Amino acid sequence: MSLLIRSSSYVSHLTLFQPRNSKPSSFTNQISFVSSFNQNPFLNLVYKRNPIMQSVSKMTVKSSLIDPDGGELVELIVPESEIGAKRAESETMPKVKLTKIDLEWVHVISEGWASPLKGFMREDEYLQSLHFNSLRLKNGTFVNMSLPIVLAIDEETKEQIGSSKNVALVSPQGDIIGSLRSVEIYKHNKEERIARTWGTTSPGLPYVEEYISPSGNWLIGGDLEVFKPIKYNDGLDHYRLSPKQLREEFDNRQADAVFAFQLRNPVHNGHALLMNDTRKRLLDMGYKNPILLLHPLGGFTKADDVPLDVRMEQHSKVLEDGVLDPKTTIVSIFPSPMHYAGPTEVQWHAKARINAGANFYIVGRDPAGMGHPTEKRDLYDPDHGKKVLNMAPGLEKLNILPFRVAAYDTIEKKMAFFDPSRAKEFLFISGTKMRTYARTGENPPDGFMCPSGWNVLVKYYESLQESEAKQQAVVSA
Amino acid sequence: MSLLIRSSSYVSHLTLFQPRNSKPSSFTNQISFVSSFNQNPFLNLVYKRNPIMQSVSKMTVKSSLIDPDGGELVELIVPESEIGAKRAESETMPKVKLTKIDLEWVHVISEGWASPLKGFMREDEYLQSLHFNSLRLKNGTFVNMSLPIVLAIDEETKEQIGSSKNVALVSPQGDIIGSLRSVEIYKHNKEERIARTWGTTSPGLPYVEEYISPSGNWLIGGDLEVFKPIKYNDGLDHYRLSPKQLREEFDNRQADAVFAFQLRNPVHNGHALLMNDTRKRLLDMGYKNPILLLHPLGGFTKADDVPLDVRMEQHSKVLEDGVLDPKTTIVSIFPSPMHYAGPTEVQWHAKARINAGANFYIVGRDPAGMGHPTEKRDLYDPDHGKKVLNMAPGLEKLNILPFRVAAYDTIEKKMAFFDPSRAKEFLFISGTKMRTYARTGENPPDGFMCPSGWNVLVKYYESLQESEAKQQAVVSA
Repeated sequence: MSLLIRSSSYVSHLTLFQPRNSKPSSFTNQISFVSSFNQNPFLNLVYKRNPIMQSVSKMTVKSSLIDPDGGELVELIVPESEIGAKRAESETMPKVKLTKIDLEWVHVISEGWASPLKGFMREDEYLQSLHFNSLRLKNGTFVNMSLPIVLAIDEETKEQIGSSKNVALVSPQGDIIGSLRSVEIYKHNKEERIARTWGTTSPGLPYVEEYISPSGNWLIGGDLEVFKPIKYNDGLDHYRLSPKQLREEFDNRQADAVFAFQLRNPVHNGHALLMNDTRKRLLDMGYKNPILLLHPLGGFTKADDVPLDVRMEQHSKVLEDGVLDPKTTIVSIFPSPMHYAGPTEVQWHAKARINAGANFYIVGRDPAGMGHPTEKRDLYDPDHGKKVLNMAPGLEKLNILPFRVAAYDTIEKKMAFFDPSRAKEFLFISGTKMRTYARTGENPPDGFMCPSGWNVLVKYYESLQESEAKQQAVVSA
Repeated sequence: MSLLIRSSSYVSHLTLFQPRNSKPSSFTNQISFVSSFNQNPFLNLVYKRNPIMQSVSKMTVKSSLIDPDGGELVELIVPESEIGAKRAESETMPKVKLTKIDLEWVHVISEGWASPLKGFMREDEYLQSLHFNSLRLKNGTFVNMSLPIVLAIDEETKEQIGSSKNVALVSPQGDIIGSLRSVEIYKHNKEERIARTWGTTSPGLPYVEEYISPSGNWLIGGDLEVFKPIKYNDGLDHYRLSPKQLREEFDNRQADAVFAFQLRNPVHNGHALLMNDTRKRLLDMGYKNPILLLHPLGGFTKADDVPLDVRMEQHSKVLEDGVLDPKTTIVSIFPSPMHYAGPTEVQWHAKARINAGANFYIVGRDPAGMGHPTEKRDLYDPDHGKKVLNMAPGLEKLNILPFRVAAYDTIEKKMAFFDPSRAKEFLFISGTKMRTYARTGENPPDGFMCPSGWNVLVKYYESLQESEAKQQAVVSA
C-alpha cells in the first residue's frame, strides 16, 4: 500500500509543519501535509519553506496513502470459515429489525468508513460525538466523529433483548445479516440528538422525519459483525467500492495524492473546472499522480434530489465525454445516508474519505446544507461548513481545499471561476435552477454541462412528469 | 505561586500517567494527576503504582497550583497610568450598551475566568465553542470552552459602528466601563446557538428568555479592555475574589490541592459531608493541605432560585457553625451568569475553576440541570453531566470527583452517604423539597442543615410571602 519516494523530488519546496494536534509517531514515518488553521493549504505548501526539511531533503522518506483514523482500517465482515457457526449462533439471539437506513449504516460501519468505530455507538461514543464531534482514542489523540451513528430500538424490542449480551440484526427483507455483540442499551433523547446535530428542532428535516421521529426511544450500541458485504442488487453495486478496495485501486494507479469530491447532484462544468483545476494545482505542487475520487453519496437523500441511478448515469456521461479524465478519476458510491446537517455533516463526509485514502478534500459553499424547513433562509450560514471543517478536531491530517466559486461566464460562454471585477457578466446557476431547467425542458446556457449528461437529466424529469401525470389521471378517474 | 516539595513524600504511592492529550512540556515540569477516562481518580491515585515513578521518587519536583488554561492568566484591566488616555479615547468611539448579563460576562472575561479568552468571542471562537466545546490553541492543544461567550447587538448599533475598529462599552447605568478592540461583527443565529448549547429549543429556558430572545441579531467580538474591576456595590463585593486573588490566597495558605464546589443552592449537611469527606480523601492520598473553594454562582439565576445575598448569609452560618472548617475553606463568589445548560454548562463551571487554581472539581447528579420547561422530565439525563465532564477536551488536567450521593439517614438521624443495602431507611430531600419546607415553615428532619443556616432560609421565605401578600393586597385594592 505504500510507495517509497525520494523526498528530494519535491519536499524541498514544500512546508512540512508539525500537525496541529501533534502526533510524533506518524510524523516521523510519513510525509504529512497539514494545512494551517483556517488557511488555504495551497498557499502554505507552495510559498512557505521549511529550512529544517531542506537540510535533510536528501533523505529517503516513506510515503503512503493517508492513515485511516485510528491507524487501522476497520473491517467487520466475518471470515468465510466462521460464517456457518456464526449464522447458527445468531439464530438463537434476540432479533433487531433494521430499517433501510439502519442497513446503510451497517454497510458504512462494516467497511470501515467510520474507522475506528467498530459498531453502533455505545453511550460514551454517542455523547462524545454529540458534544465534541470527536472521539478520544486510548492514546489521547482525537478522531473526528461528528454524526451520532446509532441504532434505535423500541420498548418491545428492548424487553425481548432483556439482559442478552448479543443480538442478531435482521434486514428489512427478513434475513439475518449479522450481529451486534456486548450490547449496551441507553436512552434515545431525540430532541437533544436533533438539536445538537442540526442546530434546530424545526419540523421538516428530511432525515429526522424519515428516520428519527418514527424510531424507538432506546439506542443499542455494540460491536458489529456482518456475514457478508452489504449489496443492493440495483445494478450499481460495482460502483460501491469499500475503503479497502479504493485504497487498493489508488495504489494500483500509484497515486501520490488523492483528492475527494463529495456530491449528491449532477456534475456540471463548474464542478469539472474545479476538479481539473485542483489536479493542476496538485501537479504544480510537485505531486506526480494525483487521483480524483468522484464520490457521489448513495444512501438516503430527500425526495426532490436527483436519484442515485440517474446521477450515476449522468456521471458516466461526463467521463465518456472527457470532461473528466477517466485515467485519473475513480467514480465510486459513498454508501452513507444524507443528514442535510451542514457544518456537522461535512465533517463526516471528510472524515469518511480519509478512511478511503483521500488526503485532500474539496469543500464548497454551504456543504450538506439546505433551505430552512420553515423559514425563508438557508438553514446554515453558507460559509460555516468550510470554516468548521478547518477547525474540526481529528481532521488535522486532511488538507481542506476551499471551493473557488465557479459561475457561467456569459462572455466566454463557459463555466469559469467567478471574477468579481466583471461580476455582471457572470450567471449563477443553483442546483434548484438547474433542476427547474431540466424539469421545464428549457436548455441551460451552452457550456453549462456536457450535452450527453444534460440529456440524462432531461429524460429523468420527463419520465417523472409522465408518471406524475399518470398518477393524477388515476386520482381524477 | 509555587511550592517546592519532595516527591518522595507522596509520589511513591501515586500513579502519574501520561495525560490523555499528551503534553510533554507540562508533564516534565510539574506533578500532574490525571484521572483515567470515566473512572474515579481516587481509585487510580490510591491503588495503582507506577514503577517508573517509584524508581525516580527521590528526585525533587516542582509543584504549583494548576496552570491556567493557555498557560497565563488573562487580566484585562487597564493599568492605572493609562486609564485617563483610554477613557478619553473611548469617548470618541461608537457606543455599545450592555445589559446586566453582558456586564457579568465583562466581569468574567476581564478577570480571566475564561482564560485564554481575551474578549467576547469572534466568529472562529464562537464556532469552535458551539461545535466542539473547545478552542484549539496555536500550539495545537485544546482548552475547554463549552459556552459561547458573546455580545449581541442590534441592527441600529451595527450601523452606528459601521467600519469602526473599536467600540466603547457602556454599563446599564450609562458609564463607559471599557472598550472592545479590533471588533468583528457576525450573524447571531439564535436558533442554532440555543439548539447547540441546550440541546433543545423549547420555550421556557431561563437564560434564553431573559437574555437571548430579546437580544440583537448580530454578535460583536473583539479584545476587551476594562478601566477598573467590575463591582456591584451590593455589600458582597468582598466575596468576589478574582482568579488571581484566589490563587494568591491559596498560595498564602500553602495549599497543595484545591478542590472546588460549585453551587447555586443553600449548603445542607449532605453537601458538607461530601466536602469534608473529599478533604479526608485528599489527605489520605498524601496531600498535606487541601483547601476547599466553596464557590457559589453569583450571576443571573432563575426567579425561583434562592437569591445570592440570602445564600451568602446561609453559607457564612454554615462556616460559623463549624459545619465546614474556615481554616481550610475559602468562600468566594463565581461571577458567571447561570445557563441551566446541563452537560454543556458543567464544563464551563469546571474550566473556570481551573483558572482560579482548582485542580479537583466535585460533580454531582444533574449538574446545571433543571426540569424540562414543557415536558414532565429532567431536561438532561442526570448522569450525562459527569460523563461529559470526564470526556471533555481541555479538562484532562483537572481531577473530576464524582459526587457520592448523600441522603438523610432516618436511623442515624443525619445526612450520610446512601447505602443501597438499607435503601428504605434513607430519605432524599431535593432542592425543591427543601424550598417547600422553608416556604411552608415546616422544619426539615434534624441534622439536615445547621439550625442557624436553616433560619436564614426560613426568614427569606417569610419575607417573600409578606411581600407577595402585600402585592396581592395592592392588586385586590
